[in-house]
Amino acid sequence: MTPRAAVLTVSDRSWLALREDLSGPLIRGRLVALGYDVESPRFVPDDRRAVAAALREWSDARFALVLTTGGTGLAPRDQTPEATLDVAHRLVPGIVEWIRARTAATHPFAVLSRGVAVVRDSTLIINLPGSPRAVAEYLDLLEAVLPHALSQVTQRPTFGNSLPHIDERR
Amino acid sequence: MTPRAAVLTVSDRSWLALREDLSGPLIRGRLVALGYDVESPRFVPDDRRAVAAALREWSDARFALVLTTGGTGLAPRDQTPEATLDVAHRLVPGIVEWIRARTAATHPFAVLSRGVAVVRDSTLIINLPGSPRAVAEYLDLLEAVLPHALSQVTQRPTFGNSLPHIDERR
Amino acid sequence: MTPRAAVLTVSDRSWLALREDLSGPLIRGRLVALGYDVESPRFVPDDRRAVAAALREWSDARFALVLTTGGTGLAPRDQTPEATLDVAHRLVPGIVEWIRARTAATHPFAVLSRGVAVVRDSTLIINLPGSPRAVAEYLDLLEAVLPHALSQVTQRPTFGNSLPHIDERR
Repeated sequence: MTPRAAVLTVSDRSWLALREDLSGPLIRGRLVALGYDVESPRFVPDDRRAVAAALREWSDARFALVLTTGGTGLAPRDQTPEATLDVAHRLVPGIVEWIRARTAATHPFAVLSRGVAVVRDSTLIINLPGSPRAVAEYLDLLEAVLPHALSQVTQRPTFGNSLPHIDERR
Repeated sequence: MTPRAAVLTVSDRSWLALREDLSGPLIRGRLVALGYDVESPRFVPDDRRAVAAALREWSDARFALVLTTGGTGLAPRDQTPEATLDVAHRLVPGIVEWIRARTAATHPFAVLSRGVAVVRDSTLIINLPGSPRAVAEYLDLLEAVLPHALSQVTQRPTFGNSLPHIDERR
Repeated sequence: MTPRAAVLTVSDRSWLALREDLSGPLIRGRLVALGYDVESPRFVPDDRRAVAAALREWSDARFALVLTTGGTGLAPRDQTPEATLDVAHRLVPGIVEWIRARTAATHPFAVLSRGVAVVRDSTLIINLPGSPRAVAEYLDLLEAVLPHALSQVTQRPTFGNSLPHIDERR
């Protein structure tokens, strides 16, 4: 079955139509090329509740993958990682550690991207930076691990209800 | 004094005796060779409360080191890191960051291991992946830092009660 | 405008005047050379509430940067990272990930430094280890990213109150 994915552009300027969003369509194009069934890009301002609401909605609709772009820096309104942690059930620290380490090798400012990768129910959510150049670098690396990661996230428990109950929801 | 260590295998299949546990005995053997006094391996299913209960029990019994194996992936029942965070007083992010970075250099899927390293009272707890091959790689790297880490974790405060009180327990 | 910075030495021994503090003055000297307006070094014992109180005070006084030294290890009273997380609004995981990875390449014990980097309001707070040698290594790397990081942290929101309200304070 084709995995369903969604892309969220988090940016006051793009939301106010003061800037053309290049990163959202770039991510969407790459995911389509990789064989995902991708929703049209959606925009929200740099607002913690708006970001969290969009992530929760897609996760509840059982999307396998949600990628965000923007709001991962240190400026006062950059709070995409906090919104993502608000809806997270489990953290996947290694994905973003690895991408930061690889991208920092050529440009140290990459370490300032505060993005997180998390699982909510059967959805993997990863924060990408806002710039199209950084987004392209993230996708180049993510390609190598996404299929394996998603096959795990979307797996059904083997033993159904015969084993102790998981309750990791907050 | 010989430091006491314990090994916890977290796996529905091993707990149900549907799979032979190779990783638990492998870790135990390596720790014995390093001079630790090691408990017999114990099994729990992939259940957050069962994992947390075992960790709490060994920490309360003042074991210096607890290594877990299994339950660090992204499958629905993988929740060893969450159980470990449930009992943690302090985080040691650098240990797992370093091992993931080193192991990802040869196989990128290593970044999907969600393990954490934490301190609870005077016990260091580290999550290892489930596969024997990955466990062996983790132990090769851990060997270099365990003695120094444990000498700190098990240290007695120099000034006893003459300085402000620590209360980091939750 | 010259950015204001402060340095906090966290150490029972230095606070009790049982040890000369070399790291605090070292950090101060380097920051002055980089053009910061730096407060005189301050000392606190390894006490979670004392560390948090100092950080809160400087953040409320709108310092752009606070660097701590000491209390990042695994000994029982090392709890500078916990105190820093107590006052944090947002985490910047990449800064310390990067420094640990770079310093661990030459001495693996560097992975045991549990320091965190966080933002509280418009203040960037970073935990450095206690030893003068390690402090010098951290500063060599930090120099490359501090100006860019602080320009973001101290930025004023472009759209003032015309966009959804942020409330990230705990």
